[in-house]
Amino acid sequence: MKLHNEFDIKIESAEILTVGTEILMGQIVDSNAAYFARQLSDLGISSFYQVSCGDNPQRLKACLRQAIERSDCVLLSGGLGPTADDISMACAAEVAGVELALNHAEADKISGFFTRLGREASANNYKQALLPTSGQVIENRNGTAPGAIMEFFHEGQKRVIILLPGPPNENRPMFRELVKDYLLQTVSYKIKNIFIRLIGIGESTAETLVKGLIEGHNNPTLAPYASTGEVMFRITEKYHNGSEPYLADAMLLAFKEILGEYIYEVGERKMPFVVADLCRSRNVSIAFAESCTAGLLSAQIGEIPGASHFFKGALVSYANEIKTQELGVSEALLQAHGAVSQACAEQMAKACREKFAVDYAVAVTGVAGPEGGSTEKPLGTVYITIANAKECQTKHFIFNGDRLKIQQQAALNALNLLRICINEDFAE
Amino acid sequence: MKLHNEFDIKIESAEILTVGTEILMGQIVDSNAAYFARQLSDLGISSFYQVSCGDNPQRLKACLRQAIERSDCVLLSGGLGPTADDISMACAAEVAGVELALNHAEADKISGFFTRLGREASANNYKQALLPTSGQVIENRNGTAPGAIMEFFHEGQKRVIILLPGPPNENRPMFRELVKDYLLQTVSYKIKNIFIRLIGIGESTAETLVKGLIEGHNNPTLAPYASTGEVMFRITEKYHNGSEPYLADAMLLAFKEILGEYIYEVGERKMPFVVADLCRSRNVSIAFAESCTAGLLSAQIGEIPGASHFFKGALVSYANEIKTQELGVSEALLQAHGAVSQACAEQMAKACREKFAVDYAVAVTGVAGPEGGSTEKPLGTVYITIANAKECQTKHFIFNGDRLKIQQQAALNALNLLRICINEDFAE
Repeated sequence: MKLHNEFDIKIESAEILTVGTEILMGQIVDSNAAYFARQLSDLGISSFYQVSCGDNPQRLKACLRQAIERSDCVLLSGGLGPTADDISMACAAEVAGVELALNHAEADKISGFFTRLGREASANNYKQALLPTSGQVIENRNGTAPGAIMEFFHEGQKRVIILLPGPPNENRPMFRELVKDYLLQTVSYKIKNIFIRLIGIGESTAETLVKGLIEGHNNPTLAPYASTGEVMFRITEKYHNGSEPYLADAMLLAFKEILGEYIYEVGERKMPFVVADLCRSRNVSIAFAESCTAGLLSAQIGEIPGASHFFKGALVSYANEIKTQELGVSEALLQAHGAVSQACAEQMAKACREKFAVDYAVAVTGVAGPEGGSTEKPLGTVYITIANAKECQTKHFIFNGDRLKIQQQAALNALNLLRICINEDFAE
Repeated sequence: MKLHNEFDIKIESAEILTVGTEILMGQIVDSNAAYFARQLSDLGISSFYQVSCGDNPQRLKACLRQAIERSDCVLLSGGLGPTADDISMACAAEVAGVELALNHAEADKISGFFTRLGREASANNYKQALLPTSGQVIENRNGTAPGAIMEFFHEGQKRVIILLPGPPNENRPMFRELVKDYLLQTVSYKIKNIFIRLIGIGESTAETLVKGLIEGHNNPTLAPYASTGEVMFRITEKYHNGSEPYLADAMLLAFKEILGEYIYEVGERKMPFVVADLCRSRNVSIAFAESCTAGLLSAQIGEIPGASHFFKGALVSYANEIKTQELGVSEALLQAHGAVSQACAEQMAKACREKFAVDYAVAVTGVAGPEGGSTEKPLGTVYITIANAKECQTKHFIFNGDRLKIQQQAALNALNLLRICINEDFAE
């Protein structure tokens, strides 16, 4: 399906409106606003306001009316569910002056969805099939609430309200696959973004080194880009819709000359995806022996569609007796070096490689806390070993932060070492 | 220090205003709004709107004016830094009609702060000492930007603007140690919330069953509460500041009579924490054999501090040959039933229990997609087995959604079955 810019609207500004009492009560952090803000920014659409309100029809309609006064487009998420509290579609229809009616195609989907689950849809569920007669429906493949686009005139100006459901796993694919294309039909300028992901260097050090590229450049621009647990930069070029971008690549070359050695990805892929693609292209198999990461490394790879092509499995040897029994880490080794040691990591990796009969094994052992650690091996100490056919390579880290942050950094760096090792092997 | 309710204002509603271009650009997820929303909710102060805007003075002043029109209090964070972009204090002073002047005590602190760092404060830095002459200063122990409270009359109504810096490690302690006490002086009512977490029932079905408790009740109220992958309800009682709550517990009893069998938690704990606490209190050990969840179950338990007391480890047997070799799933079984079957899940659980020498083993095998599945075993089919000393209990599910959502639902339900099994064993 494709959404059409039926009114031939030009969108320069969009307001993000997130709906839900759970936001106002502080029960959830509103990640939708940030996600949509970033998407709009990438499309070159300005956003001057983000507003959150609850499920009160008067207040929601007042927010919608204010938003269409000051912005070309309203991007609303939330309040499309089946319960009486879910009033976004009805309020938007009233403000936009469009009619809602039962959409039979969506009603059939809803009954089909419940039939497959072996349950029966309640009357409430069909409320989600009340959709604008004059707007466009946005298909939702991951839930029962479809979205909608309502184009209309407000005091002689073209306006559009885009409605998406609240759950990120529903609204993200809907935005990516349908809404983005719609918005691209409405913009005068386009934006080319190049994302650069670094590892092994801190953000402020990296920023200082590329200061000359950041300052005094208007187009393209280079800026550090906040991303949890990673150092990222973004190159942004603004160009006319209809022409081609050409400035961003030159900036990338200049960036690579300065920080090339720390770059692990130019693009969208996070580390697990980079490693997954590498394994597939090199046709190598992998397995993990995890202690302090306790399955996180495995879960990050296991989340990737098609992981079965290269990922054989993992042993989470959280208790020491499991390290001994399943990975041949001897009592003597544990006594002499401890479970958090290079010797233990190497034995874990070697045994893991044999047990799973893979090309590469990764072992991680460390102190994730909050308890444990000593002067010699403080909290955050982690040993990571990569075993290939020839040898073991081990690296020792001391990470900062709480338990989860230490586990996440250990997983990120383990995958990075695996990436480097595979690349080296195939460079020979 | 202590902040005083100088105007003897009664605050019933507060609006949260977060200031920063990085929020509008989607570079950060605005965790401040959620934090303050939660705090206000706990204090019994209603919050009907959250607004984010950038560092444009016209727009910020317009947002402030609108906020004091519709709420008693504005809680603003961000834009108190030393740069030219930081305009929150000046804009708030203009809207509140108060004067700013150099605060000598704060100016001394700023010069002292830079002296300690071995640097000299720039003229910009002293901008942070421009504070309201008629308001109260909120001390910041973790940064250079003090906050402020401005009490004033707006069209005959008492109003207050509270300004805090943007960084969470600065504004959280300022709120906890100073602002909260101030707000407690202003509230007539307090709020008691009870959260109820359910599993095994859909949201709309649950809501239909407790419709009689939701409708026609003003105090306490019952409402469904959105939470990723979970069905949650919240009971809220409003009571006089100075008295004790007593209505919420009666509502909880009534709720339990209807939906008691689906409740797994009354309170704040999510499923992995409920299971972790149960394992600790019953002194039982656990291990997992994971196929389609690929380490997620293990990572969710491994994230919990102190998991080593009951969690021995896991085998992620992603490839079939690993199921055969490590868990004794025979080729014959795989040929007869397939890897996604009750027979396979039971063999995995039994072998896992022996291998890790634990009291309880959990095995998960299924089709997480996006590829695979058949008419007989469609995408989302998952078998979960719990093995204890006496037997295996298996449950068959068909989950909906994308790969990650199927994995998450499988992990949630696996932990739930484990919880039920342990509870039953200790009830005997």
